[in-house]
Amino acid sequence: MHAARSLHQSEPPALPAPYLLFLGDTVEPGYAKTAFGLRDWAPERCVGEYLLPGARVSTGLPAMSPTQAYAAGARALVIGVANAGGVIPEHWVAALITAVEAGLDIISGMHMRLSELPALQRAATCHGRELIDVRRPPDKLPIATGRKRSGNRLLTVGTDCALGKKYTALALARAFTSRGLDADFRATGQTGILIAGGGIPMDAVIADFAAGAAEMLTPDAAAAHWDVIEGQGSLFHPAYAGVSLALLHGSQPDVVVVCHQPGRDRVLGHAHYALPSIEDTIALNLQLGRRTNPRIRCGGVSLNTAHLDEDAARRLLAAESDRLGCAVADPIRGGAEFEALINECLG
Amino acid sequence: MHAARSLHQSEPPALPAPYLLFLGDTVEPGYAKTAFGLRDWAPERCVGEYLLPGARVSTGLPAMSPTQAYAAGARALVIGVANAGGVIPEHWVAALITAVEAGLDIISGMHMRLSELPALQRAATCHGRELIDVRRPPDKLPIATGRKRSGNRLLTVGTDCALGKKYTALALARAFTSRGLDADFRATGQTGILIAGGGIPMDAVIADFAAGAAEMLTPDAAAAHWDVIEGQGSLFHPAYAGVSLALLHGSQPDVVVVCHQPGRDRVLGHAHYALPSIEDTIALNLQLGRRTNPRIRCGGVSLNTAHLDEDAARRLLAAESDRLGCAVADPIRGGAEFEALINECLG
Repeated sequence: MHAARSLHQSEPPALPAPYLLFLGDTVEPGYAKTAFGLRDWAPERCVGEYLLPGARVSTGLPAMSPTQAYAAGARALVIGVANAGGVIPEHWVAALITAVEAGLDIISGMHMRLSELPALQRAATCHGRELIDVRRPPDKLPIATGRKRSGNRLLTVGTDCALGKKYTALALARAFTSRGLDADFRATGQTGILIAGGGIPMDAVIADFAAGAAEMLTPDAAAAHWDVIEGQGSLFHPAYAGVSLALLHGSQPDVVVVCHQPGRDRVLGHAHYALPSIEDTIALNLQLGRRTNPRIRCGGVSLNTAHLDEDAARRLLAAESDRLGCAVADPIRGGAEFEALINECLG
Repeated sequence: MHAARSLHQSEPPALPAPYLLFLGDTVEPGYAKTAFGLRDWAPERCVGEYLLPGARVSTGLPAMSPTQAYAAGARALVIGVANAGGVIPEHWVAALITAVEAGLDIISGMHMRLSELPALQRAATCHGRELIDVRRPPDKLPIATGRKRSGNRLLTVGTDCALGKKYTALALARAFTSRGLDADFRATGQTGILIAGGGIPMDAVIADFAAGAAEMLTPDAAAAHWDVIEGQGSLFHPAYAGVSLALLHGSQPDVVVVCHQPGRDRVLGHAHYALPSIEDTIALNLQLGRRTNPRIRCGGVSLNTAHLDEDAARRLLAAESDRLGCAVADPIRGGAEFEALINECLG
């Protein structure tokens, strides 16, 4: 057996930790979701960050070389960015090899397998380090049956990629648990899997099995149980709508929460596409989701207001709640709006 | 290099032929699309069929053992059935090994790779025969851009799987060419690829790249050119709707033709799901297709009337055309209705 391995539910991962977060020479914050997610939701496992010249994105964690990070306790370098296409650029490889030489395993959530980089593979073999691809789905996935499953399911959906679907699901799962409910966060992307320690990378699944993967991710459960499922993409996205529809059909949500970033009016990376309205996003998710769960309803809206000050954010949440006629909250800010959203989700 | 290889556009296939069509012990005609498609659209490449005990599906071609087929000129056995999940059953392997021993290469359109069958792989290596998986997509696929491409595109869509989307696209492409137009049939499934000698197996593509694969399949073309694209699944299918949406978004059709089989009222293999109406299928395809091509329109309806006699079929086509207010034809029957459908598609 070689050093690469895959992670999925029936084979619980024991990822080496803590992490050094690698950001390469990234200039687009939207591509650094993984690094930001780990910083915010698994801070105890992040010792620092490692940037290459030209980088204009930072997590705010201490800058460290791989050698410094190893000395500070790190045991793995996590590639904390996901560019379009999921390819690891050639000019990152030398830095990754440095990390292997410093004693770190490499964890990647990119489409491209780490084992496809021969020089890195040789270095890992030579130094006895592991190359771990968390974006590799389970080998055996079922075709979706469409059969209704027991238990309750909430899916976060969105007007676009990279605007808060994972954060919203994490915050809702944590809030449900805090209220004494039996709830699981179900990860569908690389960052969520790194945070949760399990899940299925929906976007890496073969298309015919995508809805089946969503069914497998959220199996029959006790009547009072909640699965809080991380959404992917958007039904309006010119590249990823198919993934979003498969996840909507397969996860059979009882409740969807629509995520949006106020002010964003174009699709990220596809500037010739206008973003859909929140109302259209609610309507289309309910229209299409009804096919596998006729009882689907909207639990409310999650706005990413990180760019606003506290007063402006609270005013916007109130105004949008009035306009849309449903709960509107920023889960990261919490407060009464978030409590109202939780209440509306639980019905 | 080992014997398995993949087929795609930039690497035009030279499939060994003619074929012996293998039907296994299949009892469900809906699963034998590949064999029927080859018999009807590439008869010059089919010398016979090979059934196992228990089979209740036949193409009507002469029954032959692999040895008899080789003597009759066959150079490859084609697995002509595609069961749910795309797995080759263990009890077929001995028959496939017999074919390899008789001198035939093996061509498969199943999800499962032929090289995953160790005994078959050993026999192929030993006898110098090829194992060819046509369902393996190109290694490098792009993320969809959503950019509008030049030329004209027609996509066949459907109320369900396995009711005439490939046949309709083949018949329309042939008719367009007969009228002197520059037209290509674009194959998206294993049978279409075997018939056309190229294409991309949409259902085997990784979900994130599915719309990008559809863009690659139908590149920029001359203003008068028509790509006639084989549809997959249905936007209402509980397992495959994501594939259908990715294909709709990526192929950016100017025209959709909705395919249906009169009398079918439940989703094939998912009997707890009612089939959508033709009107709902038209409406949803136009609604969602508008996202990447605002000029999308419905060119008409294709009905699979194979189960009706000539009079009943013509009466039904006329009645449905009146009811729906568009051209309704059975391309396999041809006639004035089909001419009207072609005219409406060409606009």
